Amino acid sequence: MRNIKLCIAYDGSRYRGWQRLPDCDRTIQGKLEQVISRILNEEIQLTGSGRTDAGVHAAGQVANFHCRSELPCEELRRALLRYLPEDIGILSVVEAGERFHSRLNASWKTYQYRIWNSDMPCIWERQYVYPFREPLNLCAMQEGASIFLGTHDFSALCSNRHYKKSTVRTIRRALVTREGCEVRFLVEGDGFLYNMVRIMTGTLLEIGAGRRDPGSISELFQNGSRAAAGYTVPARGLCLMEVIYS
Amino acid sequence: MRNIKLCIAYDGSRYRGWQRLPDCDRTIQGKLEQVISRILNEEIQLTGSGRTDAGVHAAGQVANFHCRSELPCEELRRALLRYLPEDIGILSVVEAGERFHSRLNASWKTYQYRIWNSDMPCIWERQYVYPFREPLNLCAMQEGASIFLGTHDFSALCSNRHYKKSTVRTIRRALVTREGCEVRFLVEGDGFLYNMVRIMTGTLLEIGAGRRDPGSISELFQNGSRAAAGYTVPARGLCLMEVIYS
Repeated sequence: MRNIKLCIAYDGSRYRGWQRLPDCDRTIQGKLEQVISRILNEEIQLTGSGRTDAGVHAAGQVANFHCRSELPCEELRRALLRYLPEDIGILSVVEAGERFHSRLNASWKTYQYRIWNSDMPCIWERQYVYPFREPLNLCAMQEGASIFLGTHDFSALCSNRHYKKSTVRTIRRALVTREGCEVRFLVEGDGFLYNMVRIMTGTLLEIGAGRRDPGSISELFQNGSRAAAGYTVPARGLCLMEVIYS
Repeated sequence: MRNIKLCIAYDGSRYRGWQRLPDCDRTIQGKLEQVISRILNEEIQLTGSGRTDAGVHAAGQVANFHCRSELPCEELRRALLRYLPEDIGILSVVEAGERFHSRLNASWKTYQYRIWNSDMPCIWERQYVYPFREPLNLCAMQEGASIFLGTHDFSALCSNRHYKKSTVRTIRRALVTREGCEVRFLVEGDGFLYNMVRIMTGTLLEIGAGRRDPGSISELFQNGSRAAAGYTVPARGLCLMEVIYS
């Protein structure tokens, strides 16, 4: 069996998330499986590096699947470009090693959250940014972001209360930058809990708007209460940028 | 009566064009008139600098309307930001001179047509670009564009065969540029016939793809036959960038 690795970009706006759902063809995984299976004339099952929620985008999602087909990667790439909808794009199709698993082998993931911080509307990229009008104190947000760095118990920053596995994650990059009207939060970690990036961003926005102290983030790691963290910002500003394999 | 001038940006994707249509609220003019009339509690009629077709965008459309309301411009701007849909944005609201007419006083208009010239899909801006995969000879397109400059009879580059008024227009800027995968055609003129920019672009694309000679453009001004010009490219790549008043 061949093992094929895909790098995928998508606009999540129209979709109910990455994960295949029964009786619903508006999932990224479902759509990709359907189209690939038709092209190869063989039922395939796609493994993604992780799920993205409804409305979340990806600029560099990675997935793999096994198949018997001998169709060259470049031909598969061209067929996918042709048959996939305009909001799902294939960046690369390559042969992977037999044991490559896009979820289990992923070492780091980078997410970006885009905030449109202006009184003016963002017409052109409105599906990819979250409008937040209040003035933001960038220094305070940067200070808050830096506290996320390192290895911590992130249970307070997770929407799922009944998480059974470890809620400890390592963050090795957490940057807040501004470019014109746009404020971006870039975060890289070895994994993220359910809604974790969106709650991190909501917490940073509360800090930026002066309603919370940057230091309050360290307390979240101690007390672990979801209620103590910031709100969950909408999906539309979030994008999975890169999955890193070592 | 006050005369209020608006500068407007919109994503035309969801709309059937600028011009108000009976029994259809999916026009830009119709939507704006409806919202402004409600805010001011007074029926207003909007005059645009010109119509844009279904699916065409604007980054700097200008319109004006007369009203009795004494609502300050800044308050109107804020109310519009609040009540307009996300794909229509108000860039400015100012008091205009009594005799200002956004169509009759317009001296120059600038349009931009965006072409996505790549084998890869354009996920993020797909509603604003026209995908064209064939390699393009930019020099030939630039040569062709320069022939548009000056004052000519553009009847061959107009979709409306029964145009009763003059089909002579002056073009003072016509630039073809490339930035990464994107090729842009920027054109500024004292007015444009129906579909004229889209036919100019289609003609330039045929030149860029090597199916037509740049010199063939001068012939269009002589023989005036629509069939001799290039095809009409789709609306989605077109954007009204600026309306200039002198």
